[in-house]
Amino acid sequence: MDMLDLDYIASRLEALEETIIFVLIERIQFMLNPFCYRAGHSGFAGENDESLFSLRLKAQEEMDARFGRFLTPEERPVNRNLPPSLRDIIVSPRGLNIDDYDRVNVSPEITAAYLKLLPEICAEGDDGQYGSSIERDVICFQALARRVHFASFYVAESKYRKDPEVYGALIREGKAEEIGRKLTRPEVEERILERVRTKSRRLQEISDFSLRRVLDPDAVTELYRNVIIPLTKEGEIRYLLSRS
Amino acid sequence: MDMLDLDYIASRLEALEETIIFVLIERIQFMLNPFCYRAGHSGFAGENDESLFSLRLKAQEEMDARFGRFLTPEERPVNRNLPPSLRDIIVSPRGLNIDDYDRVNVSPEITAAYLKLLPEICAEGDDGQYGSSIERDVICFQALARRVHFASFYVAESKYRKDPEVYGALIREGKAEEIGRKLTRPEVEERILERVRTKSRRLQEISDFSLRRVLDPDAVTELYRNVIIPLTKEGEIRYLLSRS
Repeated sequence: MDMLDLDYIASRLEALEETIIFVLIERIQFMLNPFCYRAGHSGFAGENDESLFSLRLKAQEEMDARFGRFLTPEERPVNRNLPPSLRDIIVSPRGLNIDDYDRVNVSPEITAAYLKLLPEICAEGDDGQYGSSIERDVICFQALARRVHFASFYVAESKYRKDPEVYGALIREGKAEEIGRKLTRPEVEERILERVRTKSRRLQEISDFSLRRVLDPDAVTELYRNVIIPLTKEGEIRYLLSRS
Repeated sequence: MDMLDLDYIASRLEALEETIIFVLIERIQFMLNPFCYRAGHSGFAGENDESLFSLRLKAQEEMDARFGRFLTPEERPVNRNLPPSLRDIIVSPRGLNIDDYDRVNVSPEITAAYLKLLPEICAEGDDGQYGSSIERDVICFQALARRVHFASFYVAESKYRKDPEVYGALIREGKAEEIGRKLTRPEVEERILERVRTKSRRLQEISDFSLRRVLDPDAVTELYRNVIIPLTKEGEIRYLLSRS
């Protein structure tokens, strides 16, 4: 497989759509549980500045760092100063041209957008299932971040290689906005939005709605329209402007 | 809600079916990656007795223990000597009558069965995605364990309360096999098997099979038939024999 083949990249991104829909459906089986996101309500003694969610995300990223997760370009953490990998692993060269993957890191923006989405998709209220909620929050965040960063790196490099002169000039002149315009394919975006709406609806058709809370297909579509697609473009621009 | 109402318990168990199917589908998007399960191939320096999977499960359970996960009856770990919870949480009384939840712990059996299932549902071979595979393995194991233990505790206590004299006598005489027979409802089991087969098929109908690997609905049905249902019964028997 060629990591820089646009059809291959598009197929990977399409396959991640089900993943994102699955994990969001799993999260909303619990109520919003707003205390999970308020600093000083984590139940951890002496923790006044962190929420239960932020503590969990940090613990998860520390564990993941030890297992070598962030050696992979598309896995970008929110937290800084994570421990080094204890695993001796070889990440195969993938054709990217950038010396620091974190120059493309939009994970803080993804977390913020995800936390803003939660009240729209969860049932209001508190069911006491804080642990279950934050576990699924971390899984959702990681699925979204993987989707956004995978596209940011590989789509950008692939498009650059198809037209190095024009991109090269725009990069030299630092024209972020024009790069963004050149990367944009409205007809591709519309196709993605239509597809995730249909998938979201059909993946839930078989469930008994008296037992399972429904994820609004429009919410997924809007998440793609307002968060995933624009943050991917932001990541692609950052990649190109940092390209070595 | 009444945690010991059989209809409520059945509805919770039914809602967990989608969860189990989702997480298995997510795992099989990666190849089997047999090195993940072989001791001495974890890539962690000096680790000769553990596999990457067993190290990951241990790290996860240590983190989860600090967040208080195992204070909940239905969350039973595989590892022993886990750190205490750092979270100050109150687990509401749930009507169970047992002094040590781990007397019902069938998590080691669930892990063994899950690892035996993997070669049947994953594509043979090695795609190098070890980190992604073991992350999803842990998620699968935890979803299965939650399903089995939730039923083990609450179904058993609920059935006991419906017929305390007969169960009481069987418990006093330590008649595990007869307890198992009395707990069995073949028509309920058949209905579950039929339902998970249909759900497994229909949840995947919308996917592009050139992009997403398919989870065989028969494999899910057999997992329920040969692992989830019998281990649930085993957990229920253990609960009743340990009932205080």
